[in-house]
Amino acid sequence: MSYDDILDVASREQTEVIQKMGGSEALEEPYTQISLRKMVQKRAGWLVILFLGEMLTATAMGFFEGEIEKAVVLALFVPLIISTGGNAGSQATSLIIRALSLGEVTVGIWWRVMRREILAGLALGVILGTVGFIRIAVWQAAHFKDYGPHWLLIGLTVGLSLIGIVLWGSLAGSMLPLILRRLGFDPATSSAPFVATLVDVTGLIIYFSVAFALLHGTLL
Amino acid sequence: MSYDDILDVASREQTEVIQKMGGSEALEEPYTQISLRKMVQKRAGWLVILFLGEMLTATAMGFFEGEIEKAVVLALFVPLIISTGGNAGSQATSLIIRALSLGEVTVGIWWRVMRREILAGLALGVILGTVGFIRIAVWQAAHFKDYGPHWLLIGLTVGLSLIGIVLWGSLAGSMLPLILRRLGFDPATSSAPFVATLVDVTGLIIYFSVAFALLHGTLL
Repeated sequence: MSYDDILDVASREQTEVIQKMGGSEALEEPYTQISLRKMVQKRAGWLVILFLGEMLTATAMGFFEGEIEKAVVLALFVPLIISTGGNAGSQATSLIIRALSLGEVTVGIWWRVMRREILAGLALGVILGTVGFIRIAVWQAAHFKDYGPHWLLIGLTVGLSLIGIVLWGSLAGSMLPLILRRLGFDPATSSAPFVATLVDVTGLIIYFSVAFALLHGTLL
Repeated sequence: MSYDDILDVASREQTEVIQKMGGSEALEEPYTQISLRKMVQKRAGWLVILFLGEMLTATAMGFFEGEIEKAVVLALFVPLIISTGGNAGSQATSLIIRALSLGEVTVGIWWRVMRREILAGLALGVILGTVGFIRIAVWQAAHFKDYGPHWLLIGLTVGLSLIGIVLWGSLAGSMLPLILRRLGFDPATSSAPFVATLVDVTGLIIYFSVAFALLHGTLL
């Protein structure tokens, strides 16, 4: 094998890893040459699977329809909350997939990874939760938006939920590739979007549970 | 350079690409050896930037608070709608980043990429929109959930929004890496999560605009 051959193999593998991480089957043909029909087929599969998973968010939201009806303000932060959990999860997943493929991390040290991610997730959650709380407090104080007499409780709900969701996202995001590897699957197989879906659904449950605990008797 | 050296360089570059795509600075040290403090610093930066971007979703949702109050049922599909747009966008971004780095795509043929993504995005949107509409129709017919007398209009709102959002996500997701490259930035720099944030905000606007157009006079 020449240098070029080696780089070629390395590059082909990298293409597959990146395409899979982005949530699509490997195209197997250059982007500009593959037929439109084939490309849609390759891309539709994962999007539909993720869509079916994400449908659970509609079911989860349905459970909390009563809460949203009583406190519409809660709905305003749903996209922020779930996307932040998803971002934290994707980040952890990417780091672990890479560490796995470099051999820095193995399934055997999952508890060490878990301990690290609990601490890192907690720290990241506190940072983002604080920013979220400040956002609500500043908007309220500057009259950009009136969250009503219970704005402080709403701010706490969002801040505390973010801590829980970022922690949970980091943990789930780091463990999923290890679980996939342990089960004999390729950890790169669409892990990041899959984690985002998982974290979206559980994030909603965390958010509305925190809301119920803090706002019961006032808004709820 | 030996074979090993070459693979080493290729591997180091791949690590950076993957970590950046996952939305974190390159760690520069093995996962198991980097200090917790350093890792949190490296990860917090991007998460905070994305969080600040995602805050726009709270602002966007605030604009539609009146609509949500009148039709709480609309809130139920918000996570499904925005995450699907984000998934479509991330997928397109990953494909284009890779095609760029392989030289299959260049900034010069952006209009060819755009045409492909409009067609592919439309096809993918019609597939997902149809699945979304069927989900609502089946849940209604099977009495899993009662979306009320206007369930058909709600189903059409979700279905048509999905077409628009998947199309827009594919388009924005494919163009962003080209724009970043044109401006002299590294297209891999957190493109996928950045696209998701962009698509989340615009997705909400598309969804509530379609809802207003279809439900004005009935639910809204």
